Amino acid sequence: MQRTEIASLGEFGLIDHLTKTIELKNSSSQKGVGDDAAVLSYGDKKTLVTTDLLLEGIHFDLTYVPMKHLGYKSAIVNFSDIYAMNGQPKQITVSLGISKRFSVEDLEAFYDGLQLACDHHGVDIVGGDTSSSLTGLTISITCLGEGDEGKIVYRNGAKETDLICVSGDLGAAFMGLQLLEREKAVYGGEKDFQPDFSGKEYLLERQLKPEARKDIIDLLAKDGIVPTSMIDISDGLSSELKHVCKQSGVGCCVFEERLPIDYQTAMMAEQFNMNVTTVALNGGEDYELLFTVPLHLHDKVSQMKGVHVVGHIARESLGLMLETRDGTEIELKAQGWDSIEKEA
Amino acid sequence: MQRTEIASLGEFGLIDHLTKTIELKNSSSQKGVGDDAAVLSYGDKKTLVTTDLLLEGIHFDLTYVPMKHLGYKSAIVNFSDIYAMNGQPKQITVSLGISKRFSVEDLEAFYDGLQLACDHHGVDIVGGDTSSSLTGLTISITCLGEGDEGKIVYRNGAKETDLICVSGDLGAAFMGLQLLEREKAVYGGEKDFQPDFSGKEYLLERQLKPEARKDIIDLLAKDGIVPTSMIDISDGLSSELKHVCKQSGVGCCVFEERLPIDYQTAMMAEQFNMNVTTVALNGGEDYELLFTVPLHLHDKVSQMKGVHVVGHIARESLGLMLETRDGTEIELKAQGWDSIEKEA
Repeated sequence: MQRTEIASLGEFGLIDHLTKTIELKNSSSQKGVGDDAAVLSYGDKKTLVTTDLLLEGIHFDLTYVPMKHLGYKSAIVNFSDIYAMNGQPKQITVSLGISKRFSVEDLEAFYDGLQLACDHHGVDIVGGDTSSSLTGLTISITCLGEGDEGKIVYRNGAKETDLICVSGDLGAAFMGLQLLEREKAVYGGEKDFQPDFSGKEYLLERQLKPEARKDIIDLLAKDGIVPTSMIDISDGLSSELKHVCKQSGVGCCVFEERLPIDYQTAMMAEQFNMNVTTVALNGGEDYELLFTVPLHLHDKVSQMKGVHVVGHIARESLGLMLETRDGTEIELKAQGWDSIEKEA
Repeated sequence: MQRTEIASLGEFGLIDHLTKTIELKNSSSQKGVGDDAAVLSYGDKKTLVTTDLLLEGIHFDLTYVPMKHLGYKSAIVNFSDIYAMNGQPKQITVSLGISKRFSVEDLEAFYDGLQLACDHHGVDIVGGDTSSSLTGLTISITCLGEGDEGKIVYRNGAKETDLICVSGDLGAAFMGLQLLEREKAVYGGEKDFQPDFSGKEYLLERQLKPEARKDIIDLLAKDGIVPTSMIDISDGLSSELKHVCKQSGVGCCVFEERLPIDYQTAMMAEQFNMNVTTVALNGGEDYELLFTVPLHLHDKVSQMKGVHVVGHIARESLGLMLETRDGTEIELKAQGWDSIEKEA
């Protein structure tokens, strides 16, 4: 593969090169890359803004994450935050800190992935900053979106007896990561290693190419449902429920048997000798939506494709509870990834 | 000084701790830190967005930059980009990648500086992301601002015969950096060294605590002047003129004798055996404004406090020229900092 040194283009040359094919799609994107700031125009809509920082060695490992996938995922994690407000993402700015080991082709691949995600979600790249870095790759993306007055959903609106709903399934991205880490350890420094991932494709896809649930936001709008609270599941269901309950001043009860888990996740957890419920509750990087709706919408949300009712909101004094398969109530802990790995 | 380990608060505890005193000042800031995204509301104004990435070892050296100053400067460099569009900054999001050597007190000092800059410029902190980092400090700030329809100024509107105007003076921040670097080399690893900077305070202030020229934007508005093009001077006047001329499809002529240079800058350049004109043209980090206005506004801009007319826009075929003190015309080169240092 061709390797063009970034120094051969220079900083401004690199920006021009990476952004020259970008076309603005949204009417709210009035002026994009190429000035001190982008110019946006939102009529009577509210503007949403979110930002995510991704650091090499912390958030991604380039041993097994291709640059194109990394670009895709970097955009998706931001879109997911906008959807979690019941909004639509419209623009991103992209800042990159790049060390010498990256070539122009690497960054092209990153931008390809970024652009692909933007195309899927109708988002414009409107600006950014590029800098050299002494240490690995730094990615900082800020996403702007729009929402309708009165339909923006916060974390603080969950009410007692509300139903707790989750889109998709949980824990697969985490098991995908475990799988990649294991193969990395086995194959060590070997270049171009080709481990056999057959039967585990779903786990890898969830880890390497996650999606943001625009479809759920669109479904909710179609059904005329405005959730009472919503958050995206990036750090694991338990952690997100903790945020919602804290900000809403409520407690909750989740039913273990209702947690949506793909069979590949369950099989892999078995192989790794991990408790699949712990994985589903704390795995992270699912980028599914967690939202609450009033009890009377039970039939409506139960019929929504890809949505599962996993529990209900309770009074604050109950705390955060998990009802296990055998009917025992235990406290729901937000342990985060590290502790799962230690436990395993 | 007290040192509280960040691990004692945890990620979410840290965010709460750093953001708990933040109050929203702008009516366009509807919801700040604490949800998936901030909610902003811009009426009939245009929204401006800009972003800057600052990496330890590349953009700052914590040997001599106090965390509070770093926070201040990190905000200012973004505000400067919004002013350069003839807009007013209104909100920022702040993402930090933090390695283990930083304490809670370090980050408090950073946020103090950030908040101070925001107070001076009427800006709200509305969100962000905090992550651990394997390597030093990463700062990514995105700034949103607003501008009036029809009064936003781009880089591409400069016309032949327009006057080239510069605010403040040039090269001082660069000489401040040289001074700090020299003292660092002299005092080596000595802790709490107290070098004598008397008579050089202005250079240090320009490097450590730069300002964004809100006053110039307000003056222009008061005088009813909308520049034909504008850009902030972060990489040196030559580099910025190159952007303006390229995007406007014009050339320019700058007069060496008109370059605004503070006497401390001149004296320091002399001491370092550097050409002060080269320093003023290429020093960088001035965060002054470079703008162009039609020729008929000559008297008006000449009388504006803190504004200097340094040359004029010319036809594209002339290229970018510098008329030296002895009347010779030479090509204006955008050499950037590295080459100045090599030359010196």
